[in-house]
Formats: sequence, structure tokens, C-alpha cells
Amino acid sequence: MPGAYRQLKHVLFGRPLPSERLEHERLNKKTALAVLSSDAISSVAYATDQILFVVGGAIGMMAIGYVIPISAVIVGLLVLVGLSYRQTIFAYPNGGGSYTVAKENLGVSPGLVAAAALLTDYILTVAVSISSGVAAITSAYPPLAIHTVSLCVVSIVLLTVVNLRGVRESGAAFSIPTYAFIVMMVALIVVGVYRATMGHELAFLASPLKVDPTSARHGAAIMSPLTGFALFYLLLRGFAEGCSAMTGTEAISNGIQAFKQPAQRNAATTLTWMVTILAAFFLGVSYLATHYAVMPTTDQTVISLLGRHIFGTGFFYYALQYSTFAVLVLAANTAFADFPRLAGILANDRFMPRQFSARGDRLAFSNGIVTLALLAIVLVIAFHGNTARLVPLYAIGVFVCFTLSQAGMVIHWMRSRERGWRRRAALNGLGAVATGIVSVVQIVTKFTEGGWIVCLIIPAIIWVLVAIHRHYTQFADDVKFTGHSPILPLHHTVVVPVNGITKATAGALVYATTISDEVVAVYIEVDKRLTDELQRTWEEWDIGVPLVVLPSPLRSILRPLVEYVDNLRMVMPGELVTVVVPEIVPKKWWEHFLHNKTALYIRTAFMFKPNVVVVAVPYLLGHAYRLRDMINHDDETDVVATA
Amino acid sequence: MPGAYRQLKHVLFGRPLPSERLEHERLNKKTALAVLSSDAISSVAYATDQILFVVGGAIGMMAIGYVIPISAVIVGLLVLVGLSYRQTIFAYPNGGGSYTVAKENLGVSPGLVAAAALLTDYILTVAVSISSGVAAITSAYPPLAIHTVSLCVVSIVLLTVVNLRGVRESGAAFSIPTYAFIVMMVALIVVGVYRATMGHELAFLASPLKVDPTSARHGAAIMSPLTGFALFYLLLRGFAEGCSAMTGTEAISNGIQAFKQPAQRNAATTLTWMVTILAAFFLGVSYLATHYAVMPTTDQTVISLLGRHIFGTGFFYYALQYSTFAVLVLAANTAFADFPRLAGILANDRFMPRQFSARGDRLAFSNGIVTLALLAIVLVIAFHGNTARLVPLYAIGVFVCFTLSQAGMVIHWMRSRERGWRRRAALNGLGAVATGIVSVVQIVTKFTEGGWIVCLIIPAIIWVLVAIHRHYTQFADDVKFTGHSPILPLHHTVVVPVNGITKATAGALVYATTISDEVVAVYIEVDKRLTDELQRTWEEWDIGVPLVVLPSPLRSILRPLVEYVDNLRMVMPGELVTVVVPEIVPKKWWEHFLHNKTALYIRTAFMFKPNVVVVAVPYLLGHAYRLRDMINHDDETDVVATA
Repeated sequence: MPGAYRQLKHVLFGRPLPSERLEHERLNKKTALAVLSSDAISSVAYATDQILFVVGGAIGMMAIGYVIPISAVIVGLLVLVGLSYRQTIFAYPNGGGSYTVAKENLGVSPGLVAAAALLTDYILTVAVSISSGVAAITSAYPPLAIHTVSLCVVSIVLLTVVNLRGVRESGAAFSIPTYAFIVMMVALIVVGVYRATMGHELAFLASPLKVDPTSARHGAAIMSPLTGFALFYLLLRGFAEGCSAMTGTEAISNGIQAFKQPAQRNAATTLTWMVTILAAFFLGVSYLATHYAVMPTTDQTVISLLGRHIFGTGFFYYALQYSTFAVLVLAANTAFADFPRLAGILANDRFMPRQFSARGDRLAFSNGIVTLALLAIVLVIAFHGNTARLVPLYAIGVFVCFTLSQAGMVIHWMRSRERGWRRRAALNGLGAVATGIVSVVQIVTKFTEGGWIVCLIIPAIIWVLVAIHRHYTQFADDVKFTGHSPILPLHHTVVVPVNGITKATAGALVYATTISDEVVAVYIEVDKRLTDELQRTWEEWDIGVPLVVLPSPLRSILRPLVEYVDNLRMVMPGELVTVVVPEIVPKKWWEHFLHNKTALYIRTAFMFKPNVVVVAVPYLLGHAYRLRDMINHDDETDVVATA
Repeated sequence: MPGAYRQLKHVLFGRPLPSERLEHERLNKKTALAVLSSDAISSVAYATDQILFVVGGAIGMMAIGYVIPISAVIVGLLVLVGLSYRQTIFAYPNGGGSYTVAKENLGVSPGLVAAAALLTDYILTVAVSISSGVAAITSAYPPLAIHTVSLCVVSIVLLTVVNLRGVRESGAAFSIPTYAFIVMMVALIVVGVYRATMGHELAFLASPLKVDPTSARHGAAIMSPLTGFALFYLLLRGFAEGCSAMTGTEAISNGIQAFKQPAQRNAATTLTWMVTILAAFFLGVSYLATHYAVMPTTDQTVISLLGRHIFGTGFFYYALQYSTFAVLVLAANTAFADFPRLAGILANDRFMPRQFSARGDRLAFSNGIVTLALLAIVLVIAFHGNTARLVPLYAIGVFVCFTLSQAGMVIHWMRSRERGWRRRAALNGLGAVATGIVSVVQIVTKFTEGGWIVCLIIPAIIWVLVAIHRHYTQFADDVKFTGHSPILPLHHTVVVPVNGITKATAGALVYATTISDEVVAVYIEVDKRLTDELQRTWEEWDIGVPLVVLPSPLRSILRPLVEYVDNLRMVMPGELVTVVVPEIVPKKWWEHFLHNKTALYIRTAFMFKPNVVVVAVPYLLGHAYRLRDMINHDDETDVVATA
């Protein structure tokens, strides 16, 4: 690695860290809540929007009447899933990710389904959270909207750099965005509800956004242009989209090891807090959206509209938008911890390339981080940073994981038969059935809206994981060594292609005679006129190495050499042949063009030949040192001694 | 080379030819005329156009009055240059190219100026001839004009393929375009002059192209808007552009060896014919252009306008245009023979990369051909295939070469002092002075029209040629070997990085013990927990190779290895160290991503270390053969024996 590149790397990513720095900071409940629940809580920034987009797209302002019922069903589901995960916390004290729970209890195949779904969802977490965070900013500053994609890409790149430096889950700094967001949301809901119930409407409420809330609320059922199954299906779609509020719920049960002792109890308490906050915020936003009859547009999010409405466009409004952006960036950041960690676990299980299991200079799983960032950037660009178009892809994988994880827990309880296993299995079973049904609803209702992409990608990922696993298993089998005896050397001929008597060829010949007693120099004759001269000087030189001349009527250097070596191995089966080639190493880049890459071509030509090894002996041009010319230099004094 | 690629190559370029097929077909005068003078004679397709473009651009139709005087001066110069080259033919029976003559008589620097000018001109010959040939076609079919650049590029690519197949200067086929063009031009001039002198004007002459020739001819001197120096300078520019007619004159004196015996006499006679034909055609076209008062446009060349005028737009007209295209393609083809040949000579003289001196599978100088084609394509694209914009760059180099070549001949005669040397030196001296003056005129008058590009490129090429020469000279010096004694082997330690006991590491260890008695296995410890297990199995294995454990707190595989090897060499100065690494060679391309390229990284890390050689022992995955597991396989039966 050249010095300048290394320096740049150190400035950007910091100096390498030794492995012992890989310790784990334990978090108290308050900090853990901030660190682990940003993904879940921040979902309120887009879930209500998404219900209104989908239902409102079909029936307009009538949609507002359905927001509270749909939200209530989702909150019910959330509580059920929360209770289920409380049980996982106590069953898997080391952290029960869906992949682990599904693999251990249901088998490898369901485990891989969970893994593929999780990988997909981590990528979508980044894409959705960042695009939604950027939407919070562009809602506050509408002229920035045309730069949406650039802002998303820049945010992802910054997150990548920060994570390559190796972010520790060091609570303090991370708590700020989450608690700021919590404070601003509480303020929004309290002030909003107070005004709504007090009928305390001020002048600015006469904005064009305002429609008569009563008629909207009551009119929905009466005036809806859809009836029967069509309406039911529409509401089901709205529900499916709103379920994006539940993404991130599993984070606490995955991260038990981050808690101070008693870890399980603390984690369970924190999970309860998180579910309570998320449920309250989600219902609160949905209530306010209904009461103030706001419809999100491509320019303005629901929270931004409510903020402008309730706070006015002043300090509190901007604080709300900035804290929304910050908590969403933090949500994206959790995927930057989770994706590489899962990729590392999969790499250790030989389902992903082993490069994903190596920690980089800064102890981060660098390859996983960069892969995640690149895929998220592709998604953001492909969907123009449009949250509303990204969310339909989201949540499908999350619910598949919920289902597999809880089904796994049912098996876990049935196997363990510990006290209360029936009750616990029943709760997890109920969770599994509910989330299973929601998974099907998700796939069916969102299929044409982009859900088909996820339905293609998850099987494709599984196929790749399996192919990689098959390769590594075969490879391990292939290289497994079961012999126990000492190693015996082979009989060994060394072939040195020469094109004249130079220091470079002399270096190669020194090396050749060092590694074997049987050395042959071969000369590829392209032009007959030069052969006699070489043969004469070769005999004069008298180094005890025979010179073989191989005519090459087609002027190829490689073909006669390959044929000669093949012949050697035919005559003496089992013979080991080494081809020693001098490799000219120029000092300046452009000098490479002035020398044939013969060493490279020869190495490639013999790559797939058994029992042939090609050695390139570097000859350094213009350097003070070079492969020591260990020849008796009777009449030569200018050779630099090697220190 | 994979099979499919090789097959494609054979279909496109033909099967490889053996070197003995490199014979030389001798040509009789008629065939030689066709082969060697296409470049010169075809110049009439653009020279008159160019005079009219430049002069007409300033003074409109008045320009027509100056075409004949300017052409007459150029023809005078052509005769002088022709006579000078006759002398070169007798002095250089092996072909006297400008580079050779200038280098031998004037020294290396003038030789390099000539070489750089020639290389530039060969590229321009292709660009100008092809764009002018395509202009002949688009003149006949004006709707094709929008495809000019594509047609040019396709023509150059076809020429490249034909030349890579190895075109021999096999006269017969090559004679057809030249003689067809000669026949059509004679017909054009004879019919045109007959009609002009007989006043035999037909109905179609009332075309919009027709202006009153008498007024145009006589009006020029009287009504020209320019006077004095401005007019003189304009005519000088016209003259400089018209000199493009003289390009290609040196071809016959370069190609004497292609003639049947007596080669020199035959070449001299052919040169006289060529000059006569070129002079007649050039004057003829200029006369007709004047008489019929044609002005070339961006759509129509002078010859196309004359053809439509004199023949009518029928069979004879199209025959004229096609033969013009054909002779111009043949002219471009001569550059495809000359550029690679000169590049080969320069490569042998170590002024160009040696790759240019190697003949390809089909005995052609493939690298030179491809380089020429690429540069010509760049020019054609940059100048939109516009002949009128390319010609100003042309001829500058040609006249520089004329001057240097003839100045060289003066020195040649002064040195030889053979019979009549004074007369001969005087003639060449006159030629040198005349072409020298024209060179200055060329540079001055065309500088702002693109001539500056050539004035930058020629010195740049010289600078590159000199830099290459310096490198090769230093290299030859660097590798020159003057020792005469037998080679002595070195003391040699082999280091084998291992990451476990596998067949791949066993293969590397077999190889290591074969090439030296001092072998050390090193294990880079990234995770302490794995070390004990390896040390235990290593001791059980008991192969007589010590295992050294190198801790790597920063998880780098390379750094501890490099430090260890550096240490070895510090302890024992002059020690040769070989690092033997197993290199996993996957069967399928995607499997490459599943294995670290450790062998490659290790090779790169040691590339610039003196006295260290890195050997990659290939381990072929999934192949029937592999580096023979030459270990006593007490308890292993599944190893494939090597045939």
C-alpha cells in the first residue's frame, strides 16, 4: 500500500486498532432504549403517511376516517409481538436473532429464509430511513427537494465512513437524537391533543390544508366510493403498509448482551418501554392526522404538516424536523451494525464469502459495511429517494422473520418443557399465526406495488447462500488432509527460459540452481540468425547448465515452452517441474509498457497444469538492491552488495 | 487463450503462419506503379478542393482564377522533388526512407525528427485518405453525409482486419483500384477538355453550379477584394494547402526492394511515370475546375462536381466516384504497411517499445497496425471526418521529411565523392532548399488552422522516442552480464505461511521441502483461541518442519510475515528467502470471490524486496489433477494419481 493512500486512509478512517480493543460496553436501560429502539420508534415518521398515501390514493380525503381503526389494529399486533419477544429474551440470553432461533429450532432452510429476509430488510432499513429522514429536511426546506437523491447518497456515504472508523454502541452521544425526538413528539402530541379537545383553534388553522374534520371523519363510511370487498381490500393494503411501524421491534431481543446485569430483566423492561412509546406515538400521530385532516403530499410529511399546524413554522417546528432527521439517521445506523454482524455470522457458517467475517483495521466488519452502503445507494437511486415507493418493499421480510422466529420459539418451548411451557408456546404460537397471516397479507396486497421485487430477491439470496455453502463444503472436503506421515521431497526439474546472457537471466539461473540440481535453460528460437551467437557465448560461459533450443516457427514464446514442459512430464510421470522466469520490475509506471509481461503470460499458461510451478524472480530496474548476483564476479566490480 | 476466443481470432484474422512464409514477392513496373503510387496519385482527390476552399473562403469565386497558377508552381516543385528522389533510388538500393537517410547522413537527432514527422504523416494519411474517400461516396449519395464519421470508422476497422490477416503487396488485386482511377481520370480530363475547347456545351450545363467562366477567370485579378501582401499571403496559404498533392511521392524510393531486377532502374522509371501522371491529373483537374468554375462545397468534392458536369449523373459518374473511393482506401492501406514497418525499425533501434518489432500470428506487425488504426480513428472522430479540416495538419510533416532526406543526400554525395557528385549534390541541395522553404511556408500559413497541433505533436513524439531510448539503453546497461564463471547456489530458507493442515498447505510444504532443506512454517495468529489446537495437531503431524507463530494484533496477514522475512535477512545478510504460498485456483469464475487473494497480496508485498522470491503453488479446485500430494498417504486412498 503506497504511503499517500495509507495516510488518506488513516485520516478518513483512523489508525488501525489492535484486536484487544474489541470489548463490549454495557448499557443501562435508558441508554439502551435510545440505542436499540431508534429503528422502531422512528417508524412513526413514515407509517401514518403510508396508510394515508395508499388509502387516500383511492378514496381521497375519506381515507382520514380509516387511519385510527387501522392504527389500532397495528398497535394490537405490536403488543402481541412485543409480548412474544419478551419470551425470546428470557429463552436466548445471548441474543436471539431470527436467523439463530429459526436455524436452531426449525432447521437450516427456515434459518436461511430468515437470513435472506433479514439481509433484505437491513438494506431497506437504510434506504427507507435515510429517504424518510431527508424528506423531513426537504419538508422544512422545500427548495431542497430537487436534491433528494444527492442528499440521501451523501448521508449514506457519511454513515459508511463513520461506521468504517468503527462506531461503538457508546450510548451517550447516541441518546441525544432519540430523546430529542421523543421530547419533540411528546410536545407535538400533547399540544395537538390539548388544542383539539379544547377547540382552541388559532388564526393559522385557516390554512388550505384544513378541511372540516367532522365531515371527513363521519363522511368516510357513508360517502366512500368503494364498498364491500374492494373497500376491505383497500383497508387491508393500508394496514399492510402501516405495518412498517413495527419494523425494528426485534432489535432489543437481539441485543441482550449490550445490557447491564441483570441483562434479561433490563432488556425485558426496556422492550416494554419501547412498545409503549411506539404505540403511543403511532396512535397519537394517527389521531392528530385525523383530527386536523392532514394528507401527506410528495413535498410534506404528516409530521411536518402537523408541526407547521400545531407549532407554527418557528423554532419548535424546525426542532421537530431536525430531531426526526436525526433519529432516522440513527435508525439507518443500526442496520450498519446489524447487517455486517449477520453477514459475519453467515460467513462463519460458510453461507457468505469469508471476507465478511474479517474485521478491518478499525475492528469493524468493513466488507459488510461497504456492501450494505452500496446496495442501499442503488436502491435510493433506483427509487429516486421516494419513501412512499420504498416502503411497500419493506415489512414483508420483517414479518417473515417475526413468523419464523416465533414458530421457532414454539418448538423451543415444546422441546424444553420448562415451567409454564404450554402458556408460553401458546403465546408465541398466537404471535406466529398472527404475523404469518400478516406476512401473507403483505405479500398479496403489496405484490404489484414492488412487493414482487422482494419475492424474487429473497429466494435469489437463498440460492446464492446455498451455492456458496456448497462451494465451501466441497472446498473443505477437497483440501482436508488426513495423512499423518512426514513429507517427502519430489524429483524436480527446473526450466529457465532465457533470451540471452544478462543479469536478469543470471539471477534466474542462480535461483534455479539453488532450488534443484537439474536445471535446463531453454531458448525459444524465433529468428534463426540469433541462435548460433547465443550457443557460442553459452558454451564460453560454461556454467554447467545445458541450453536447449526450441524452434518456434509461429513466433509464439509460450507454445514451444508449454510443449517442452508437457513432454518432460510425459517422459517422467510424477515429475515436478518448476519454470523460473526473470520478471523485470520497472521503477516508473510507464516503463511497464516497454517490457513484455512474459512472466505473467507464462504463469497464466501453466496455471491449470498439474505439477508445474512457475516462479517469477523479480529483477528490480534502477534500484540499489536486486536479487543478489551470487555469481563469481571475476571481472565485475559494479555489483551492489546486499545488506 | 480460451478456445472460443482463439477460434474467433482464427475466423477474423486467419490461422497463424510460420515465419518462413515471410518472403518477398517482386513486382514488375506496372504493378509497382499501382501498389506504390496510390497514395501520391489519389492526392488529386483533395488537393484542388483544398486550394479552392482556402482561397475561395476569402475571396469567393474570384479564387478560381488562381487555381492554375498555384497548381503550376506545385507541379514544378513536384518535378524537382521527383528528380531528387531518383538520385536517392540509385544511392540507397535497399530503400532510402527519410529516417534512414537522415540518420545515416545527418545524425540521430535529425533522424528522429524525420521519424516523428513520418509517424504523424502516416496517421494523417489514413485519416485524410479515408475521409476523402468517404467524401467521394457521400458526394454520390448525399443522404449518407450524416453517417460520415461512422463510414470512416468502419472503413478503418475493415482495413485493420485485412492488414492483421497480413496483406502481402500482391500486385494483381491491388492494381485494379489504381488503374480504374487512372482510366476514369483520363476519361474525365479528355472529355472535359474536349468539350471545353470545342465549346460543346449541353443542356445539363445550365445547372445552378454553372457561372460564367469567362468573367470568373478574368474578373479575379481585377475584382479581388484583397491586394498586395494580403493577397500574396492568401495565395501562399492556398499553395501550402495544395502541396498536399505531393504527399506519397517518397513511396517508390522507400520500396525499391519490391521491384524486379534491375530494381533501381525499374524504380526510377516508375517514379518518372508516377510524377508524370500525378502532374497531368493535378493540372487537368485544376484546369477543368477553372474552366467550369466549380467550387467545392461541404457536400460535393471538385471531382464529383466535374463528374456530374462532364459525364452527367450516370454510370460513368458513379464509376468515377467508386474508383476514387477505392484508390483512396488503397492509399490509406499503404500507411498500414509503412507505419508498422517504421515502428518496427524504430523498435529495433530501441526508440519505440519492443512490442512493435514482433510479428504477429499472421506475420504482420500487429501492434503497429492496431496503434495506427486507433490513432487514425481518434483523428477522424475529433475532426468529424472533415477532409478540409484535416488537410492543414497534413503535408507539414511530409515537407519536413523531404527537406531532411534531401539535405541528407547532399551530405551523402559530399562524402562519397563519386562521379558527378557535385551535380547531384547541387540538385539535392536545390530540392532541400526549396522544400525547406515550403516547410516554413506550411508551418507559418497553416499554424492557426491546426498546424500548431503538428508543431506540438512532432516534438512530443521525439521526446517520447528519446525517453524510451534512454530507458532501453539504461536497461541494457543494467542487465549486461560480464561474469564468466559458473553459477554458485545460494544459502536458502523457505517460509511457508500456513493457516491449518490442509492438502493445499501440504502441497506447499512438499514443494518447499523439495527446493530447500531449511523450511519454516509460519502461522499468523489473528485469534489466539485457534493457535493451541493448531500447535497440537502440528506436533502430532511430525513432518520435521518447525511451526513459528507470529501474533498479529492488528489482524493483518501481511505485516507480520513481511517483518519476519525482513528479520531473517537481517540476521543472515545475503540470505535468499523464498515464500511458498498455496494459491487456490477455482474452477468457476464466481468462486474467485469466495477466496482471499492472499498469494497475490503476498507477491505484491515482497515485489520490491531484494533477495526474496514468492512462489505460488497452485491448488486446483475440483480438477482431477493437482499438485501431486507426494506425501506418504498411510491412511488416505482418495488422492488422484498424477499421470
